[in-house]
Amino acid sequence: MDPESIAEAVMKRLEDAWNAADGAAFGAPFAPDADFVAIRGDLHSGEAIAAGHQQIFETIYAGSTISYTVLQARELDDRVILAHVRGTLNAPTGPLAGETDALASVILVRDEHRIAALHNTLVASG
Amino acid sequence: MDPESIAEAVMKRLEDAWNAADGAAFGAPFAPDADFVAIRGDLHSGEAIAAGHQQIFETIYAGSTISYTVLQARELDDRVILAHVRGTLNAPTGPLAGETDALASVILVRDEHRIAALHNTLVASG
Repeated sequence: MDPESIAEAVMKRLEDAWNAADGAAFGAPFAPDADFVAIRGDLHSGEAIAAGHQQIFETIYAGSTISYTVLQARELDDRVILAHVRGTLNAPTGPLAGETDALASVILVRDEHRIAALHNTLVASG
Repeated sequence: MDPESIAEAVMKRLEDAWNAADGAAFGAPFAPDADFVAIRGDLHSGEAIAAGHQQIFETIYAGSTISYTVLQARELDDRVILAHVRGTLNAPTGPLAGETDALASVILVRDEHRIAALHNTLVASG
């Protein structure tokens, strides 16, 4: 599979999990030692990813939907893929109520189709 | 060299370049096809990194200093290193006047000791 297809397949899993508000499913594509930098600049790892998302699915992002678009994906070597992904969030309430874009760098390990690291930043308006 | 030492050596080059307000030196450790996601969620690549930094060194970050601390670094495989780095900016003026922390994910290619990608996010207070 080419890098774009791998990235799109993995992001589809995250998108479906977010839209089902399913933290465990959201955490599943991440490697056990994965690193996750969220939009507030906080670093999480491994199992905290599923639990942390379940918490926000039930609170600030309750009822929200997300749509991911892979902007680019390339191989850093024969095992590691780097993708840049735009996420468009629609949230009915909470600190990001309305529509918000974010840009994520996603590092994937080819053999396992798992996420080794993800770093996400809100796209500033204007 | 271990991953931490490689990351620290590369970040020292960026720190020295920032503190000398030298955009070309800041861009030098990046691979020609490197990807850079800045704090506003904007994606830059390759040569734009040096020019973009020279511009901010002369405007919003004029007179600022930065200090980088490698929080963790690990091998994703035998060639690719992922490091997480805290940057503490002290800016006399501009939109980030005062002291501001950011968290960066930095992807390094071992053979060349070059940065393949960097993604930076402001650390939210409170």
